[in-house]
Amino acid sequence: MYKFVMPEIIFGSGSMKHTGESCTRLGAKRVLIVTDEGVTQAGWSDLVETSCREAGLASFLFSNVSINPKDKEVESCARAYLDYECDALVGVGGGSAIDTAKAAAVLATNGGHIRDYEGVDRISSPLPPLVMVPTTAGSGSEVSQFSVILDTDRQKKMTIVSKSLVPDIAVVDPDALSTKSSYLTASTGLDVITHAIESFVSVAATPLTDVHAKNALALSSRYLRPSVASKYNKEAKEQMAMASLHAGLAFSNAILGAVHAMAHAIGGRYPFLHGDINAVLLPHVMEFNLLASPDKFKEIASLMGEDVQSLSPSAAGEKAISFVKKLSIDIGAPLTLSEMGFEEAFIPEISETALADACMITNPRDITAEEVASLLRKAL
Amino acid sequence: MYKFVMPEIIFGSGSMKHTGESCTRLGAKRVLIVTDEGVTQAGWSDLVETSCREAGLASFLFSNVSINPKDKEVESCARAYLDYECDALVGVGGGSAIDTAKAAAVLATNGGHIRDYEGVDRISSPLPPLVMVPTTAGSGSEVSQFSVILDTDRQKKMTIVSKSLVPDIAVVDPDALSTKSSYLTASTGLDVITHAIESFVSVAATPLTDVHAKNALALSSRYLRPSVASKYNKEAKEQMAMASLHAGLAFSNAILGAVHAMAHAIGGRYPFLHGDINAVLLPHVMEFNLLASPDKFKEIASLMGEDVQSLSPSAAGEKAISFVKKLSIDIGAPLTLSEMGFEEAFIPEISETALADACMITNPRDITAEEVASLLRKAL
Repeated sequence: MYKFVMPEIIFGSGSMKHTGESCTRLGAKRVLIVTDEGVTQAGWSDLVETSCREAGLASFLFSNVSINPKDKEVESCARAYLDYECDALVGVGGGSAIDTAKAAAVLATNGGHIRDYEGVDRISSPLPPLVMVPTTAGSGSEVSQFSVILDTDRQKKMTIVSKSLVPDIAVVDPDALSTKSSYLTASTGLDVITHAIESFVSVAATPLTDVHAKNALALSSRYLRPSVASKYNKEAKEQMAMASLHAGLAFSNAILGAVHAMAHAIGGRYPFLHGDINAVLLPHVMEFNLLASPDKFKEIASLMGEDVQSLSPSAAGEKAISFVKKLSIDIGAPLTLSEMGFEEAFIPEISETALADACMITNPRDITAEEVASLLRKAL
Repeated sequence: MYKFVMPEIIFGSGSMKHTGESCTRLGAKRVLIVTDEGVTQAGWSDLVETSCREAGLASFLFSNVSINPKDKEVESCARAYLDYECDALVGVGGGSAIDTAKAAAVLATNGGHIRDYEGVDRISSPLPPLVMVPTTAGSGSEVSQFSVILDTDRQKKMTIVSKSLVPDIAVVDPDALSTKSSYLTASTGLDVITHAIESFVSVAATPLTDVHAKNALALSSRYLRPSVASKYNKEAKEQMAMASLHAGLAFSNAILGAVHAMAHAIGGRYPFLHGDINAVLLPHVMEFNLLASPDKFKEIASLMGEDVQSLSPSAAGEKAISFVKKLSIDIGAPLTLSEMGFEEAFIPEISETALADACMITNPRDITAEEVASLLRKAL
């Protein structure tokens, strides 16, 4: 027996203009718009504010979100929500803005420190209406039951998982992708591919999550390159937005694996882009996990467009790994942790932290701290 | 821009035992279980009642639902809900029980006659928590925004469409299919195939509904025969339950077409099984609609497992039509309206009624009353 949850989806070019009416439909009167400086400069939070005003809502802006969002930011955001007497939250941005909005919703209604909610199913009181507007085709947070927040004292990314964190409505407007740099497109796109692969081979995968993981993988394998190549390729942007949505639905319900567990541990210690860390770790973890589910890795290669019919599952799996490596090179993603500034001395500590992450439980192959350390060394 | 909604899904053998705790999770204290005599005799409503008791809920039974559920039954059901001071509804059964529970929820909270809500988006006040437990792999009502109720005065099936009708939780337990007769398995299974095909070629189809329509079609084409053949084929039951779920998600969001518009009109006048009417009409409507989207019909044939690579879209579409005809013969479904007792004299009236049905709007080919009449004559 398994469960599957998802928010209402509004998808398509121009859909962001309907954010306000989506809030109204949920009974909101005063909304806090949570975003970051980059998104504000690109004009997207203005567009959302206008749509709120046109829908007759009072709206307030909180734009102090940084990449790898921090507990302090979540606290300020919750305070803003309460001070402005808001009754709904709208996240506009990448995973950072959306995860901050979700975590602030938890604090505003459940109290305490965000650390209290680390892990699975720790949120007891219902959250206010949440409408999420992703501006990167990457995090999938607009549809997921996840929020990942940095505990600044412990220098540790906390994974919070709860059905309460599934937003009420996700407004996915591919137009938002037109203002992203090619570098950010590459990094977030590799996050999508990582979500698709990890949820597909997860021990918690189900026939329903497989449907979404497979669609995510087929679309992102085909459209990430053209999406990185041009800001103006509308089809590629739309397909990457859809791929990100499918990947989010897959991992929200099937959870992830060792790549994310390790990326969270590294992200707690270094201000690297989450997608960049995933990109570097993914082929190494695939190599390690191949033993656990060769048939699924063969299917992965096939979804990537590789001709693997005559190959053994393991040989086909190797093709999938090569595909990922080649893709990273083609779109200019980092290939090693060292080039990002990661120091070998942290490996033992990072390995222990990764082992305790909620995402490690669903990795298809059992793993020890020594094996995590060995993977990190390979990725150096 | 398009929208996509679905309830939370709980899927798998034994999941029905979790109905009570699903209600509790939604805040329910006193639930009305809506079901029919056949389902009660098979023991499924007992099982749901037990799960409610074990979850600490007070539960009350309403089992006066007939096939093609009627406005009077909906009124009695709403009265029972109010008299027992319930705060949630659980539908246990096929489309009839589930549609009755939904419609009673509308009356209990929005008042008036169920006729007032015919058409699209006519429900204003929120509904109480709805948990639906399908016992046929057919109607898809456990996930859809539809309820179809017979107006006994007008002898007309009313199609009510509203996002409010999407249940909160669908508990899909394939074990429930083990007590169905092979005749009912065939009839409801052909309803699944009709949902999949009509939603796939609907003018309101989107990439998200296509994902579900395609999965529904691939699964039902493969597993309907073995499911009809044996009560004990657990894999076939599980796959048909999944096919029905996918088909429900597809048509809930993409709506249907001429087969359903005509089946609703006929079902208002005759007490035939809905699936039987669909089975007879489907190949004729496919023949008519082929002109509108030959490429999609080629894809349908391919999803059915036909080798159509070297064929033109139209020739491939003909293969899909033959597949449906052969399937109906193999599983013993009726092949003509006459053998069911339909009288030619009603054709003009039925044609007019069908033309006004909400499902006709999304049929891929424009259609006139004369063309509907001609299709009915072909199906005689």
